[in-house]
Amino acid sequence: MTTPMTFLGLGAMGSALAAAALAAGRPSVVWNRTPDRARALGEHGATVARTVNEAITGGGPIIVCLLDHQSVHAVIDPVAASLSGRVLINLTTTTPNQARELAVWAVEHGITYLDGAIMAVPRMIGQPGAAILYSGSQAAFEENRELLGLWGHSDYFGTDPGMASLNDMAMLVGMYTMFAGFLQGAAMVGAEGVSATEFARRQTPFLAAMTGQLPALAATVDAEDYAGAGQQSLEFTEAALAALVTASVETGVNADVLRPVHDIVRRQITAGYGRQGTARIFEELRTSRNGRR
Amino acid sequence: MTTPMTFLGLGAMGSALAAAALAAGRPSVVWNRTPDRARALGEHGATVARTVNEAITGGGPIIVCLLDHQSVHAVIDPVAASLSGRVLINLTTTTPNQARELAVWAVEHGITYLDGAIMAVPRMIGQPGAAILYSGSQAAFEENRELLGLWGHSDYFGTDPGMASLNDMAMLVGMYTMFAGFLQGAAMVGAEGVSATEFARRQTPFLAAMTGQLPALAATVDAEDYAGAGQQSLEFTEAALAALVTASVETGVNADVLRPVHDIVRRQITAGYGRQGTARIFEELRTSRNGRR
Repeated sequence: MTTPMTFLGLGAMGSALAAAALAAGRPSVVWNRTPDRARALGEHGATVARTVNEAITGGGPIIVCLLDHQSVHAVIDPVAASLSGRVLINLTTTTPNQARELAVWAVEHGITYLDGAIMAVPRMIGQPGAAILYSGSQAAFEENRELLGLWGHSDYFGTDPGMASLNDMAMLVGMYTMFAGFLQGAAMVGAEGVSATEFARRQTPFLAAMTGQLPALAATVDAEDYAGAGQQSLEFTEAALAALVTASVETGVNADVLRPVHDIVRRQITAGYGRQGTARIFEELRTSRNGRR
Repeated sequence: MTTPMTFLGLGAMGSALAAAALAAGRPSVVWNRTPDRARALGEHGATVARTVNEAITGGGPIIVCLLDHQSVHAVIDPVAASLSGRVLINLTTTTPNQARELAVWAVEHGITYLDGAIMAVPRMIGQPGAAILYSGSQAAFEENRELLGLWGHSDYFGTDPGMASLNDMAMLVGMYTMFAGFLQGAAMVGAEGVSATEFARRQTPFLAAMTGQLPALAATVDAEDYAGAGQQSLEFTEAALAALVTASVETGVNADVLRPVHDIVRRQITAGYGRQGTARIFEELRTSRNGRR
């Protein structure tokens, strides 16, 4: 029989992860700061632990899915001495540097660390379309592939424990900016009486089609070939963005989401690149003004 | 035989429009401020006019595709007296209010005005996937459907001449914010040695899939049902966006594109809506701070 594993943290996501393991017949000990969610899983066969110490006695991997990085330390620091030799799989949302910090902490305590970043909402866990990115201990990743496969498609990003989080967060930037831009557009047509639903009917296939431009943008960036043929110039894009900001303001809609894109394009034109391609936005973004590069 | 139509402005887009008409055997008179592009179309059967006055003698619709709104007035104001009774189809990029201004000007000169907003790059004209939005004179739209159909899918947005431009610009906001967010993400992973092409390989299908969330966001906005079940809360989104901004800054990447989204979410939380759904971003956007609403 499989060694019982441990689930620490049973919010919507932690509960979904534990439920998928239980559904596959995996013996699981579950713990949550407030016990309601633990009881629900107990009805599906989980052993409910009253303390973290009690929860980690099983010997299997310890799956952590808590509110944030601080919560992880608050829960596991007190039991660190008991975790030597164990595998810790951290699925809490953490920044790359927080994942790296925890990995160093784990090594200091003889713990094998695997970091995971979940590209799914709780109801998608165990369904097609769910993906989880991992980085850190390759041995922990390989030994637990069957377990990880219960949750979704698993992707390993190497031994640097920060890479799963970094790739996850980089992908979410595009998602949140797209959502915000969509809502700004909906507000613009909404000011003239068009429903958001009617707008979405046109916007959804348009944006889906426009994602098809991303590989070409990426190739331009990788080649640093901003002067190559067939690119939309920064000057053209600047005129378009100026018109979009004006149209937004004239309908009484806040243009804060779009304005920094316009500003970035203007800075590249001021720097002398107006005739070059719009993918040069990349050059402005990677040159942070916080002094690190 | 069809009455000859007129093309004023032969940049990349104007030339593509004229070329599609010529390819369909439509007699066309073309004019451009600089004559090179006109000569190229002359080789494909266009009558090349040396002046605007000469270009408008044919009697058919006058298709205008110039640099900007100011250029349109600069070209057509001097010949306004000769345009009475004619149809003007303006495909120049203009804001909704510029289109409305030109429509009023047209009425004053006895001209029938149809405004068009092109959702395509020049090489897409006449190909599947090209769409042009129209608004203004319904008679002009109906009478010229065959011509308009040569360029792409035609969509009529009503007699308010600003609506084609408004819908076009609202859709482009989402496109530009998505592109900028993608490039920020590419810069983040790029700081750790991942190519933009490798990033695009993951990001393109992810963002295409995420467009599937837009109809649900729209339904929430239309129903103003931000307290309904199953929505990602503003508090959750705030924590995620804070982590994304931190991750971006820690890789040395400019987070200017994402920061206003984070700010908007924080303002909604400050206003007391932290437990409500993230679609409330819409409420913050439609309440512009420029005083108009």
